[in-house]
Amino acid sequence: MTPFLGEFLGTAVLILLGCGVNANTSLKHTYGLQSGWIVTTFGWAMAVFVAVFISAEASGAHINPAVTVSLAAAGKFSWALVPSYLLAQLLGAICGAGLTWLHYRPHYAAEENQGTILGTFATGPAIPAMPSNFISEVIGTFALVLAVLYITGPVFGDSPGKLGALDALPVALVVLALGLSLGGTTGYAINPARDLGPRIAHALLPIPGKGGSNWGYAWVPVVGPLVGGCLAALAWLALQPG
Amino acid sequence: MTPFLGEFLGTAVLILLGCGVNANTSLKHTYGLQSGWIVTTFGWAMAVFVAVFISAEASGAHINPAVTVSLAAAGKFSWALVPSYLLAQLLGAICGAGLTWLHYRPHYAAEENQGTILGTFATGPAIPAMPSNFISEVIGTFALVLAVLYITGPVFGDSPGKLGALDALPVALVVLALGLSLGGTTGYAINPARDLGPRIAHALLPIPGKGGSNWGYAWVPVVGPLVGGCLAALAWLALQPG
Amino acid sequence: MTPFLGEFLGTAVLILLGCGVNANTSLKHTYGLQSGWIVTTFGWAMAVFVAVFISAEASGAHINPAVTVSLAAAGKFSWALVPSYLLAQLLGAICGAGLTWLHYRPHYAAEENQGTILGTFATGPAIPAMPSNFISEVIGTFALVLAVLYITGPVFGDSPGKLGALDALPVALVVLALGLSLGGTTGYAINPARDLGPRIAHALLPIPGKGGSNWGYAWVPVVGPLVGGCLAALAWLALQPG
Amino acid sequence: MTPFLGEFLGTAVLILLGCGVNANTSLKHTYGLQSGWIVTTFGWAMAVFVAVFISAEASGAHINPAVTVSLAAAGKFSWALVPSYLLAQLLGAICGAGLTWLHYRPHYAAEENQGTILGTFATGPAIPAMPSNFISEVIGTFALVLAVLYITGPVFGDSPGKLGALDALPVALVVLALGLSLGGTTGYAINPARDLGPRIAHALLPIPGKGGSNWGYAWVPVVGPLVGGCLAALAWLALQPG
Repeated sequence: MTPFLGEFLGTAVLILLGCGVNANTSLKHTYGLQSGWIVTTFGWAMAVFVAVFISAEASGAHINPAVTVSLAAAGKFSWALVPSYLLAQLLGAICGAGLTWLHYRPHYAAEENQGTILGTFATGPAIPAMPSNFISEVIGTFALVLAVLYITGPVFGDSPGKLGALDALPVALVVLALGLSLGGTTGYAINPARDLGPRIAHALLPIPGKGGSNWGYAWVPVVGPLVGGCLAALAWLALQPG
Repeated sequence: MTPFLGEFLGTAVLILLGCGVNANTSLKHTYGLQSGWIVTTFGWAMAVFVAVFISAEASGAHINPAVTVSLAAAGKFSWALVPSYLLAQLLGAICGAGLTWLHYRPHYAAEENQGTILGTFATGPAIPAMPSNFISEVIGTFALVLAVLYITGPVFGDSPGKLGALDALPVALVVLALGLSLGGTTGYAINPARDLGPRIAHALLPIPGKGGSNWGYAWVPVVGPLVGGCLAALAWLALQPG
Repeated sequence: MTPFLGEFLGTAVLILLGCGVNANTSLKHTYGLQSGWIVTTFGWAMAVFVAVFISAEASGAHINPAVTVSLAAAGKFSWALVPSYLLAQLLGAICGAGLTWLHYRPHYAAEENQGTILGTFATGPAIPAMPSNFISEVIGTFALVLAVLYITGPVFGDSPGKLGALDALPVALVVLALGLSLGGTTGYAINPARDLGPRIAHALLPIPGKGGSNWGYAWVPVVGPLVGGCLAALAWLALQPG
Repeated sequence: MTPFLGEFLGTAVLILLGCGVNANTSLKHTYGLQSGWIVTTFGWAMAVFVAVFISAEASGAHINPAVTVSLAAAGKFSWALVPSYLLAQLLGAICGAGLTWLHYRPHYAAEENQGTILGTFATGPAIPAMPSNFISEVIGTFALVLAVLYITGPVFGDSPGKLGALDALPVALVVLALGLSLGGTTGYAINPARDLGPRIAHALLPIPGKGGSNWGYAWVPVVGPLVGGCLAALAWLALQPG
């Protein structure tokens, strides 16, 4: 499997399962309807676990443009590979969201609330306040990338800038932590592909009565994570010994 | 312990605990009544954990016909062993469901809702829509088997097509992920023995006022997982380097 | 630390934390009031985790008479050590329950329901039906001890009949599985000391208006686990090669 | 990264995420509002996980004055380093709480209940009863430090008095256990910096209508954990062979 396929498949699985838990907890008549924040956060964390396991060998399991760009900024990953990683992640995320829709199709058909439908695809702020929402995504991704840099540190003497299969659990638990603690404001995108990919899928898919895709907010979960990740890379570099 | 006994015992424990959590969350007067999707999904995941631990040494802990057939399709397991594995899994599943009934007998006696009783044994669709329900089982098992193939990959240089005791936790977390994210449509059978065995037990057991076993739906959680698993094996083969 | 102290301290911690989660989920004005079965089951599982970690080195972390007797029955532990292990476990359980009461004293003082108070100490059946309740404890402990025998197997070539610190997580997850799946009937004592020790503490402690200790039921969570554990030891022996 | 920076950063992340889950479960309009004790306890446990991972290499991940003082009392850590560790922890905790406020700022602005606002920063008793509340903090921290001493024991032959990255999960699960089982009385500070730092931040931050910081209770979650931790160190020393 090439790195491109690894990132594509990993991100597709991440979004299939992640948007899947959103669908399960919110769409009409699902078995997991209204099962609460513990289900949402464990769902996304375990989605990361499965996705890292599947893509670790092929691509180092970034499955997140903020991770890819930050690892490059920290000097642990080649800038030359960044464009193909980002493209694979975005395409994977779009396809993953399409699979979620296919999986939950009768439930999307039964759902009448446009906000609920969009909420299974893309994030949105609990209280719309652009600067604060942006800061939330910066802080969340700062913590994510800082933790990833420490997780990859000792394990990656031989292959810097990559996550291995054994990193799947720690990274998943970091994402669990972020969801439980910081997800309450903007729904913790902390990954530009996680938000933009499904939002594009939402715009493209033939869902009856789906409503708009809230493009006015779409830059926040893209730019915020990129800024937060790069700040974490800078902090990490500043903290490295001499 | 022979491989046959390993698969029998492993699948029996899987179903005792899995149908057990169904009983605990739905039958009258149980301590876990209405404790929600997080209990159901952790219950099935931990059932997998215990079952893999018990059967890993003897049989490689398939405990799922879709896994057995897919591993054979991927060239990692001998086709000659497939029939005895499937038979052991089905018999184990029937016995496991019988044990669940024995364990929860006063609660089955107190329960009057036929759908609730059947729901502790077999899966059923949240929205009956045969083609979509079938697709749900295909997608869920595709993800399960793809993950299992990546989990067994690095660990099984010496014994291809088998899960070891150390795989118990990652496989359990994959099943947790699938339940949380994709279980909302059909209750994630993703294992023909998991559904068919308890359904047979439901038909055989002397439960007063139990109602029918919904045989019209029974092919979906059998054929869907087999198709999904084999598609995952094909995808995995296509993704292997030359 | 002597083995006696190890078992005493391990069981005391197990019961402090286990009865603690019972108190937290049921006594008046606690922060965890009515937080559900997921909290109860994770609480007991994590209690096992901490207790095994603390007692593994000194005593092999049995912290359960059913485990001690079954390991002896399986030929993995010396019968000569059994009496001192059982005594340490019972004394530890009594002291642990006393500590729980000390910890939650204002909440015990505020609680008026006698059944709630007793329920934080000892188990009781959701539906009183002695033979079925007995069978429930047999089945649950059978599964526990069978899993423990497989967990200790590969790890204990050098020290048979003991759990090590690295077994803390798998054993805790087995107990999580049993609580989620089989705990709905009798509250899964699956450990004679876990039930008898706190019941004695309930009888001894000066709790105003505490009511009776339900001694009529007390034999079930003592005899049931011992029978279930020994049956598991016999099954395990029968399944061993040649 | 110097040990001072390690403790500062680790404790800041601990409190950002810990107070973050408090904010998420209690402030108006959050996605995690009223999501229950399982979210609170997993949130704090995973906060510990991330914080230990980030600070293990630099400082040995104490992130808790009670741990630092107890390790010194047990002879596993130099008293000369204690003051700088405590200062770093307190400053980190204040900054972490400030970040939580920044992250959840629109939700703090929307919240009108003063008790809810204070509750996201500092702990308080479910039933005010100073001696019992003090005892609760002593018991909880005793269990925490005893477990930490056993966790660091086998791993730290070469670097006594420090937690490594691989200790992140066991320590997090110990904190999960304590929250589930013993947190119901005082909200389990079990860490003087965890309570005092955010309480100072609460007093300093410009939160409209925030009310008082309940300084009358502030000594309990500072002195109680220090006493409990030192008692655990003494018990551990008494239990060591020869």
